[in-house]
Amino acid sequence: MAYDSCCVTRHLAVVPVLLLAVLLLPQSLRADNAGDGETDTKPTYGYVTKYLTVPVDQFSFTWNDTFQLRYLVNDTWWDKQKPGPIFFYTGNEGDITLFAQNTGFMWDIAAEFRALVVFAEHRYYGKSLPFGAKSFEEPKYLGYLTAQQALADFVAVIGELRKGQSFPRQSPVIAFGGSYGGMLSAWIRMKYPHIVSGAISASAPVLMSAGLTPCDAFSRIVTSVYHAAAPDCAENIKRSWKALRNISNTDDGKAWLSKTFSLKKAIHTPADVNTLLEWLNNAYTDVAMANYPYPADFLGDMPAYPVHEVCKPLRKRVKDDKELAKAIFQGVSVYFNYTGRAKVLDVNNSDSLLDVSGWDYQACTEMAMPMCSDGRSDMFERAPWNEAEYSKACFATWKVRPKFNMTLWEFGGRDLRGSSNIVFSNGLLDPWSAGGILRNMSDSVQAVLIPEGAHHLDLRSQNPADPASVRGARRLHRQHIRKW
Amino acid sequence: MAYDSCCVTRHLAVVPVLLLAVLLLPQSLRADNAGDGETDTKPTYGYVTKYLTVPVDQFSFTWNDTFQLRYLVNDTWWDKQKPGPIFFYTGNEGDITLFAQNTGFMWDIAAEFRALVVFAEHRYYGKSLPFGAKSFEEPKYLGYLTAQQALADFVAVIGELRKGQSFPRQSPVIAFGGSYGGMLSAWIRMKYPHIVSGAISASAPVLMSAGLTPCDAFSRIVTSVYHAAAPDCAENIKRSWKALRNISNTDDGKAWLSKTFSLKKAIHTPADVNTLLEWLNNAYTDVAMANYPYPADFLGDMPAYPVHEVCKPLRKRVKDDKELAKAIFQGVSVYFNYTGRAKVLDVNNSDSLLDVSGWDYQACTEMAMPMCSDGRSDMFERAPWNEAEYSKACFATWKVRPKFNMTLWEFGGRDLRGSSNIVFSNGLLDPWSAGGILRNMSDSVQAVLIPEGAHHLDLRSQNPADPASVRGARRLHRQHIRKW
Repeated sequence: MAYDSCCVTRHLAVVPVLLLAVLLLPQSLRADNAGDGETDTKPTYGYVTKYLTVPVDQFSFTWNDTFQLRYLVNDTWWDKQKPGPIFFYTGNEGDITLFAQNTGFMWDIAAEFRALVVFAEHRYYGKSLPFGAKSFEEPKYLGYLTAQQALADFVAVIGELRKGQSFPRQSPVIAFGGSYGGMLSAWIRMKYPHIVSGAISASAPVLMSAGLTPCDAFSRIVTSVYHAAAPDCAENIKRSWKALRNISNTDDGKAWLSKTFSLKKAIHTPADVNTLLEWLNNAYTDVAMANYPYPADFLGDMPAYPVHEVCKPLRKRVKDDKELAKAIFQGVSVYFNYTGRAKVLDVNNSDSLLDVSGWDYQACTEMAMPMCSDGRSDMFERAPWNEAEYSKACFATWKVRPKFNMTLWEFGGRDLRGSSNIVFSNGLLDPWSAGGILRNMSDSVQAVLIPEGAHHLDLRSQNPADPASVRGARRLHRQHIRKW
Repeated sequence: MAYDSCCVTRHLAVVPVLLLAVLLLPQSLRADNAGDGETDTKPTYGYVTKYLTVPVDQFSFTWNDTFQLRYLVNDTWWDKQKPGPIFFYTGNEGDITLFAQNTGFMWDIAAEFRALVVFAEHRYYGKSLPFGAKSFEEPKYLGYLTAQQALADFVAVIGELRKGQSFPRQSPVIAFGGSYGGMLSAWIRMKYPHIVSGAISASAPVLMSAGLTPCDAFSRIVTSVYHAAAPDCAENIKRSWKALRNISNTDDGKAWLSKTFSLKKAIHTPADVNTLLEWLNNAYTDVAMANYPYPADFLGDMPAYPVHEVCKPLRKRVKDDKELAKAIFQGVSVYFNYTGRAKVLDVNNSDSLLDVSGWDYQACTEMAMPMCSDGRSDMFERAPWNEAEYSKACFATWKVRPKFNMTLWEFGGRDLRGSSNIVFSNGLLDPWSAGGILRNMSDSVQAVLIPEGAHHLDLRSQNPADPASVRGARRLHRQHIRKW
């Protein structure tokens, strides 16, 4: 039974974090950047921070409540007299400044297009909290956290940006987004084609729900990425779960594990063991998502091709349980301690809890994305998908039940015949490509594949280490934008 | 100042009723039909009445409130094993049974397409009241009366109809609608192209708001219809307002007018006079909308080409005020008393108040349609459009303020480049064509003009008296449906 409850916890706490992993570390990252003379090698982009008053409920007249939605604007390259396009990032589940810093592609091409660069924050994230600190307290405050409401907010921001322009507006809006933000960029074009001229939708798992994708597809892709780095690496990880459970069967073993993994909080109970294993599970997927060809700090500070680094100590079959545990820890140190500054590993880390809560809630309403692993065709512990248990856990936490088919009915899933001017890009190294649009749907709903790409690599700033495929993808993006 | 307040009243009470005129008389019509052996010459169509439980707020998870939405289904021609299309009427502001009886076109072609025929009621009308009898009591109950919420209801009904079908669904949905229902049929295709394959949008004034149409266009078309019937008819009506006001300046005059017009409630105050004049204003527009080539009872029992009938006593210039008043009364008797059964004229008629209230509320939120007349280029009293006054009156009545540009931002107005598979049909005798799409927007967003057509004549059942243009329009509709 402990196993079952583990799995439910896994789906509620870990799966959302997959998309959201970006949010687990932002506070520590910010601390680094503001730290004592550390060299910050990231590009930093400038903007003016603005706020727009928007209705809490965009689809009724019942409440007059409003709140302040944050958005970031840079008009360096924009000619107000003869306005060019608006590059509009449809913010996803996190502080919008993080996306502004990690979407270099928009900045890289802004001058070429003389574009206004805008990043709009998603309601209930960052500083855009409809009910301030109370926003997450009760179902009645949280209920307005939906994709449709967020899209309507974005339309309101576009209205503000285009104030004074005649209709049809002079400045075509090009929506950009990655991951859930990529879903939103596609959907804003779909629902408001008269407002948004086209969308670059990067690594958007629009098919991840409503039974459109087998629940194990994600786990299988993660596994294949590790297998490609070193076949025995995936095999060692697959075997490690049992090894870790074996070790933790005794109190001595738990103590050894706590010491070996430098755990901030030593493990004592079966729940503690589950937490450690969930952390590892999450670490492998984050590293796969951030498997970029150069060092980056999007999902935590990591070296180039971090999957290879994790696999270094795991390249050869390790048979002994404790030896395997040590190799595992050595490998994942790349993920949580690439800088070498971490003294301990805190698997209960809950920095930015608020943001994680937001996605957790969305995953319990309209964004439920069934995930599973079978422990045979993938390198994870067996964790079957159980819709009823998932729903029950959602109700226990949030007093809501998931609408598993909602995105399908609202946004059409694979049926995109009625839409146009959308590019879906996917990196084939990215586990989220499991739920991506991987083939052209029509002349104007196109798929771009990036064989060497991890999670929305194409939206990142250009880098000398970029593989040819991502350069090609960015060239295509620019061609499409020019056409729209 | 009395004039000003007249005008605001006019915009709040009369303009909504223009679209809605259909609703002023349904109760009396129903009474007729259930009456003592009267011959009912209307076609009657059979259906099963069903109800679906839908959320009050389709766009948040804050409330769990649900209500029962009514819809009518006829599966006579539908083969469940090999399901054909679903003909789906997107209900507008009224009891859905009325639209089922007045949209003969869908019934006429159902067998040819082996279609399932469905009429779905719009929330807050007919029997689909989200909060029962309380629905209109307070702003907090009324606030969910919006077009977007109604569209989401319709999508839920389609979901119910297609239960068990695989996705993409086997049965293409063709949306039909007239007037506001036509706006909804176009918009459901626009917002849910993966659910609805195409839309026949008849006499839909989608351009009537947000400054897309001059506020006097409607009045001018009504005038031209009367002018075409008899130039002096429009001229007499134009002069009648002053004549009626002259007469009602004295108590004797008011008594004379009350008697001459067989008023149920004699006029005493200036407000009573305004009410009579508003009723006349409304009568002329209703008659123009229902200017069908055969007797019909859509907007009340009327003869063929009722504008001609209204104009019969007004064909020659009538100079004397009282003579003119008598001729006016004689003319409009065609509108309220074609059957000869009315003993009195009740200008305070408020049958179906609830439905009128619904549209009045919508006209005060997202459906505000600026209307005006100048008394020179049109046959109406001067009634300038005053946005501030309108907004103030809305707030006084409903505690809401209109969002004058809302439909433009939500649905794009004239910018339909991103949409497809919509036919906008307009009768050029119909005043609402003022706000219609009158030219092709693209290969798949097409305009069909019906020079001899009044308000959504093409959606009515075929009739030997139909002009060639409406027969042609229906042929085109069928071709489009076959393509979709």
